[in-house]
Amino acid sequence: MTSQSGAGEPQRFWAKVEYDGTDFYGFQVQAAERTVQGEIERALEAVTGTETRIVGAGRTDRGAHAKGQVVSFTTVWQHGLHDLHRALNAVLAADVSIRELDLAPEGFHPRFSAKKRAYRYTILNQRWPSPLERRTAWHVIEKLDLGRMIEASRSLVGTHDFATFGQPPQGENTVRTVAQAEWQASGPRLWFDIEANAFLYRMVRSIVGTLVLVGWGQLSPKELESFLLARDRSLVKQVAPAQGLCLMRVDYVAREGV
Amino acid sequence: MTSQSGAGEPQRFWAKVEYDGTDFYGFQVQAAERTVQGEIERALEAVTGTETRIVGAGRTDRGAHAKGQVVSFTTVWQHGLHDLHRALNAVLAADVSIRELDLAPEGFHPRFSAKKRAYRYTILNQRWPSPLERRTAWHVIEKLDLGRMIEASRSLVGTHDFATFGQPPQGENTVRTVAQAEWQASGPRLWFDIEANAFLYRMVRSIVGTLVLVGWGQLSPKELESFLLARDRSLVKQVAPAQGLCLMRVDYVAREGV
Repeated sequence: MTSQSGAGEPQRFWAKVEYDGTDFYGFQVQAAERTVQGEIERALEAVTGTETRIVGAGRTDRGAHAKGQVVSFTTVWQHGLHDLHRALNAVLAADVSIRELDLAPEGFHPRFSAKKRAYRYTILNQRWPSPLERRTAWHVIEKLDLGRMIEASRSLVGTHDFATFGQPPQGENTVRTVAQAEWQASGPRLWFDIEANAFLYRMVRSIVGTLVLVGWGQLSPKELESFLLARDRSLVKQVAPAQGLCLMRVDYVAREGV
Repeated sequence: MTSQSGAGEPQRFWAKVEYDGTDFYGFQVQAAERTVQGEIERALEAVTGTETRIVGAGRTDRGAHAKGQVVSFTTVWQHGLHDLHRALNAVLAADVSIRELDLAPEGFHPRFSAKKRAYRYTILNQRWPSPLERRTAWHVIEKLDLGRMIEASRSLVGTHDFATFGQPPQGENTVRTVAQAEWQASGPRLWFDIEANAFLYRMVRSIVGTLVLVGWGQLSPKELESFLLARDRSLVKQVAPAQGLCLMRVDYVAREGV
C-alpha cells in the first residue's frame, strides 16, 4: 500500500533542546509525572496531530538542566522546517525550548551517534543562600580549597573504569573516557566542566560530591584517585544535588557543534 | 517607666537583601498579596516574637529582582548579631535571603541616607526563548544594534529632568543625576548598568524599552535625547518587562559598599 495522495512521507528530525529542570521529574517519560520528554511529545502531538515518540541523547536527573540536550523524532511535516520549529516553541511550556531544529542525517541516533557529552556543574561557595541562583547552583557554605579540587580532578582525565562513581544506564560496561575535567572560579562561583565519551548514571554528581569533600580537606586528592581505582560505589559518601548540573552539549562527528 | 529587668532596649539594624522577584507582587506590603516586605516582616515576627515593620531603600516592581536591596528595622534582640542573621535566613522563604546584617549607624535611613543606587537590566537577544534565563532576562528576538544603544545612552549621563521616563515615588521633583549608563555584551546577552542618586518609578524600564527601539533602528540616538529634553511621558512607547531588572547596590556615605 502506498501513501495516500497529499500525505507526505515521514521524515526524521533532530533538535537541540534547552530546559530548566526545576519543575520536571527528569527527562524520561513517567506515568503521571511531568517530564521533559513528555512535554516535548505533547507539543509534537499538538502540532502534528499525531502521537510521536522522541529519543534523547541521555536521561538527565530530576531537577538537572540542559542547554544542549539532543533529541530526534520521526513525523510527517509538509510545511517548512522553520514553521515546525516556531509551532513547537509556541506550544511548549516556558521551561523547555527548542534551540535548533533540522532534518537528521541518515542513520542519526541521538545516543548511539554521540561522540562526546559535556556537563557543567555550578557551586556557589558562600555563607548565605542566593535566591537568584538557588535553582541552578549548589549552595556550599563551608569554604572550598579550589587548588585541592583542581589537583584531584586531574586523576579523572583519561580512560578509566568509573564504577565507583555510577552505574551504566544499560549493560555492564563502566569504562568511560574523560577528555576534560576542569574548574573555573569567579568570586563565590565555581564551575566544573567535564567532557566524556559517555557518562554513567549519577557520575558527575558523585564526582562533584566527592571533590567537594576534597575541597573541605576531608579527603586528599590521592584518596580520590584511590577511590577511582577501587571500583567500589560505597566509597561515594556525598552526591552533589541535581540543581547544579547542566548538560551543555552533545557532540557528533557527522554534525559538528550539534 | 524603665524597661523590665531582662528585656533589652530596642536597637536599629540594617540588612542587605537578595531576592528573586518572580513570585512576589513587588517589594511593598499589600493586603492579600505576597510581597518581599511582607515576607521579611513575617520572618522578623517569627524570630523576635514581635510585629516589626521594615523600611526599604526603594520599592522594586512586581517581578523585578534585587541583589543589594537595603532595609532597616528596630527590634529587641538579646543574642548575637550572627544568631539573628541565621535565624532570619532559616525562617525566610527560599526566594529571599539576608546577605549582610549589622547595627545601623546613628540616624541611618535606607532611603534618605542613600547616595546612589545601581540597577542592572539584562536582555537576551536571540531568536528562541531561554528556559534557564526566562526569569531574569528580557527575551528580545529582533537583532539589536548595540553601537546605537551605547551612543544613545550617553545622553542620559548627568543631571537631567527625567519626567519623560517616570514619575517620582513622592513629591514633584523629577530631576535626577545619572552617574553611569553603560552597556556590556557577551554573546546574545546584553547588560545595561545604570547608576543614579535616585530613580523615578519605572525609570530604568522606560529607558531600556526606549533604548531597544533605538537598537532596532526605530528611533535615532538623537531622538532619544530629544525625548529626554521634552519631559513628556507619552513619548515612551515601550517599557521593558520587570524580570530583566535587578537592584544591584545602594551606596551610603557612612557605610561604603552597603
